[in-house]
Amino acid sequence: MLHLGTVMSFLRCTRSALGIWRIQSRVRIETSSALPQACSVCALVRWKNTAANRARGVDYRFSNARWRHVVVGLLAGTSAVLAYGLYRQQVQRAEPKGIPESASLTTVSALDNKVQTSYPIYTRQDVAKHKTMADGIWVTYKSSVYDITKFVHLHPGGNKIMLAAGGAIEPFWAMYAVHNQEHVFKMLEEFKIGELSPEDQKQVTSDVTDPYGNDPLRHPVLKVNSLKPFNAEPPLEILSENYLTPSEIFFKRNHLPVPEVDPKTFRLEIAGEGLKSIQLTLHDIKTKFPKHTVTATLQCAGNRRAEMNAVRQVKGLNWGMAAIGNATWRGVKLCDVLKYARLPEDTDAKHVQFEGLDKDLSGSHYGASISIRKALAKDGDVLLAYEMNGEELSRDHGFPLRVIVPGVVGARNVKWLSKIIVSKEESKSHWQVNDYKGFSPSVDWDTVDFSSAPAIQVLPIQSAITAPCNDDYLSSDDDEVTVKGYAWSGGGREVIRVDVSLDGGETWQVAELTGEKQDEGRAWAWKLWQLTVPLPKGQENLEIICKAVDNDYNVQPDTVAPIWNLRGVLNNSWNRVKVTIKPNSD
Amino acid sequence: MLHLGTVMSFLRCTRSALGIWRIQSRVRIETSSALPQACSVCALVRWKNTAANRARGVDYRFSNARWRHVVVGLLAGTSAVLAYGLYRQQVQRAEPKGIPESASLTTVSALDNKVQTSYPIYTRQDVAKHKTMADGIWVTYKSSVYDITKFVHLHPGGNKIMLAAGGAIEPFWAMYAVHNQEHVFKMLEEFKIGELSPEDQKQVTSDVTDPYGNDPLRHPVLKVNSLKPFNAEPPLEILSENYLTPSEIFFKRNHLPVPEVDPKTFRLEIAGEGLKSIQLTLHDIKTKFPKHTVTATLQCAGNRRAEMNAVRQVKGLNWGMAAIGNATWRGVKLCDVLKYARLPEDTDAKHVQFEGLDKDLSGSHYGASISIRKALAKDGDVLLAYEMNGEELSRDHGFPLRVIVPGVVGARNVKWLSKIIVSKEESKSHWQVNDYKGFSPSVDWDTVDFSSAPAIQVLPIQSAITAPCNDDYLSSDDDEVTVKGYAWSGGGREVIRVDVSLDGGETWQVAELTGEKQDEGRAWAWKLWQLTVPLPKGQENLEIICKAVDNDYNVQPDTVAPIWNLRGVLNNSWNRVKVTIKPNSD
Repeated sequence: MLHLGTVMSFLRCTRSALGIWRIQSRVRIETSSALPQACSVCALVRWKNTAANRARGVDYRFSNARWRHVVVGLLAGTSAVLAYGLYRQQVQRAEPKGIPESASLTTVSALDNKVQTSYPIYTRQDVAKHKTMADGIWVTYKSSVYDITKFVHLHPGGNKIMLAAGGAIEPFWAMYAVHNQEHVFKMLEEFKIGELSPEDQKQVTSDVTDPYGNDPLRHPVLKVNSLKPFNAEPPLEILSENYLTPSEIFFKRNHLPVPEVDPKTFRLEIAGEGLKSIQLTLHDIKTKFPKHTVTATLQCAGNRRAEMNAVRQVKGLNWGMAAIGNATWRGVKLCDVLKYARLPEDTDAKHVQFEGLDKDLSGSHYGASISIRKALAKDGDVLLAYEMNGEELSRDHGFPLRVIVPGVVGARNVKWLSKIIVSKEESKSHWQVNDYKGFSPSVDWDTVDFSSAPAIQVLPIQSAITAPCNDDYLSSDDDEVTVKGYAWSGGGREVIRVDVSLDGGETWQVAELTGEKQDEGRAWAWKLWQLTVPLPKGQENLEIICKAVDNDYNVQPDTVAPIWNLRGVLNNSWNRVKVTIKPNSD
Repeated sequence: MLHLGTVMSFLRCTRSALGIWRIQSRVRIETSSALPQACSVCALVRWKNTAANRARGVDYRFSNARWRHVVVGLLAGTSAVLAYGLYRQQVQRAEPKGIPESASLTTVSALDNKVQTSYPIYTRQDVAKHKTMADGIWVTYKSSVYDITKFVHLHPGGNKIMLAAGGAIEPFWAMYAVHNQEHVFKMLEEFKIGELSPEDQKQVTSDVTDPYGNDPLRHPVLKVNSLKPFNAEPPLEILSENYLTPSEIFFKRNHLPVPEVDPKTFRLEIAGEGLKSIQLTLHDIKTKFPKHTVTATLQCAGNRRAEMNAVRQVKGLNWGMAAIGNATWRGVKLCDVLKYARLPEDTDAKHVQFEGLDKDLSGSHYGASISIRKALAKDGDVLLAYEMNGEELSRDHGFPLRVIVPGVVGARNVKWLSKIIVSKEESKSHWQVNDYKGFSPSVDWDTVDFSSAPAIQVLPIQSAITAPCNDDYLSSDDDEVTVKGYAWSGGGREVIRVDVSLDGGETWQVAELTGEKQDEGRAWAWKLWQLTVPLPKGQENLEIICKAVDNDYNVQPDTVAPIWNLRGVLNNSWNRVKVTIKPNSD
């Protein structure tokens, strides 16, 4: 019952923060040593109040009154979120054997019920003979045998599917839990050609262990988009409360299981085109190079994908508007490390590749690359970071070392960094070459040519409304409404204006911006904004819209459909929120 | 009859280019010594065929067949353009006294007819006493006296209006010919308070000479938006015929009369924060520094203002879609010159100001500034250019020296450069401080605060359709339609895709791009694009749209209204062209 204890403890701690209860919190949510023996909300409150943070002069606007509001909201209105987190944690605990069942319990049962004696019986040896396109590609799932030859080239994950050829798919689906969806099971069923022999059925999944078994515990307030790998974002109400997003609620976007790294034996390898191949310990990194602190916003390319899904279904996690966060990162400059490794100034290398310690069953690591121009730019501010918001990196955010590439899409900010390779070529990683690219709305999975588009690096201008939320009710008793949100642009471009409309885009008003002063071309951090205006009278419904402008006068597009793309990335259309005004209480 | 000779010669020369007539052209259109004794179209053809240009490997797609099409089009369909140019030239010749009458002949007559004996009579001395806000601001125009005190703070040109206080406005309106509009005369009439005494009337404008009298002759094919100062753009049909825009048809955006510069006595002064103040001759510039060639697109901030005007009237020249052009520029790097002037590497200056030799009646020069970051960036490629498309700069494009700031709005590419000032401050010029800035659509002339927005520097992603043109007729006999245009983004961002829709934005197809390979972050030049698709059958009208994407995945906004601003700058909304399909000829 650890999961229930976690949530109960969370509830107690939030009350404790309000001074209602004074019960010592008993469960450690975050495995990071930086936050022992405390629930995360308490940690947030404590963190907010540290002298170091106060000294930075940031306007957190995170008063006790606000906290009371948020926490009461959590206790009352957003219990669904907690329940959801609870359910997810139950699921996590219920999967000791690693069979992914979270989103597909009924489907799997349906599969079980579908055993037909009319199917031919095959042995594991029979299946093992079919692992080439010439012989056909067969796989097993539980007791069934499938011929997926025709599906191979349609597989969104590309060639990875061949890892399962001639064998069981369970280990791979345990790794890539995105498969745990009803339509995936239905699709698989279409390819069924037989049953495993009764003997072979007995040991189908007995050798599968859960590669996610060592993932850290997470804050239950997070909205989980995928459990394995873990992908989650904070509730919108909380996101814009802090100029610096607390680590615990900062969106987590993992592609693979979180590796467990021993900082004592950790080594960073630096190699590649015309430089001395070297290895650095964590101690080397922390002592050999000047320390730098950068406040930078990270955003997932899939942030606001849900709005794109509403236009037409895309492939990818259904992110809301909170797959973005802002933090201070402390570490050393990549350019200093490359100089130390004697990278020649006139190198003809074009890219710097990064490899993480997170890996799949085939031993393939997460990887990505950035241009050497960004890596070496004096004001590029690319960090090898070991601290986030003044504390050691948490495991979910890349402990002990990650790359921070300010102004660039999250996917290139490689976590659990273990290798840096200077090269004439981009990373060959799936996520660099066959993912995280934008396409015309006309391109579908039959016509897509991933080589025709550049890998996403710098992100375009973005903004979203964090309050009020879509489908919220406002009271006509109120004279005013306060609209709040965030705005950010990639490439170090500064947000100079946010326009807000309360009438679906007919008229606009300029919001007030909050943020730190940043140097020209180095505006890596977001701005929070708000606008308090009279609540329009005599209207039942409002469509509230925001749109931002950066200092290159880039603007957001009006609508989603024309920037729709099959992977659902890069949604930076105007953010629209519909609210209802409840009639006067008189 | 020089103007008629010019046009006739132009017509003969175009035929000559087709091999129909072989008549020696007799009139020199361009005063630049680079193009003696030839009409500009001939020069264009010659220019296009130079070995140097061919050797650059650019796909000009400017075949004889295309030329034939364009020239025949000019001779037949666009005679209106020629007639317009002819009319403008007649007007220019007819103004030896510098009284601006081009757009306002009828209005001026109306003013003349309005003499009323009921107005009080004032002398010039009476008027001269009213040149402060305390005493009231009076001015004269022809025989009338006006009290414009209440208008002073509304004047779009700011304090410049005070130059005329207590005197005649003719010299200033001759300088700023933007005043030659009916609504301006009407507005003035509202402030009339009296008549000049008959004696003073006799000499009202006798001392006014035309400051534009020395402007060079221009190619009659240009569409003139303002004659004094000269502002003109080429017809769209021609614009996208060349990857490199010929100098003669490259849009001309002058703020003041074109100065006449003697290259022998020309000096460039370099001064400012912590550097040695020096003067360089043209010979110094051409011999002391390495030469660099950059292909860069320049765009006026007001390009496509006409589309903004169609939403709501703005203040500014009514530019179409051709206030943009692409050329090769040759010169020396600004950073090399600043280094030569011993600018310290750790300078705390933030800006580099430029001053042109063009000046107004008060002796105030055109000026602008860019950030020192752009000026010194290794890959910023800021040039002091003395050549355009392989020839000496023409007078209209800044002879003998101009600044080229690749990726940055035209207004900072100061022509007739005479002074470079390194400073902690931006240029104090009107065009830096009180113009060329973007605002929310909600901001009007009563509420605008120019200090609240940054000066436009890098421009956002842009594209437009050059063929077919708005209101064109297509024939339903044709199976296909070819849509053509240009696309460009500021800041060295590369255009990676242009989407074209033939159904008002419902569906999109990807166009084929043409352009030179450019280095990362230094994509200063535009791409031309085209798409040939089946002509939709059974439809009478098509709305053709284009929208471009750059490599930061910036996109264009869908519509004009939400980016409307009082100065009509920065229109980069989707470009929309409506065409009619003529019924089948069967």
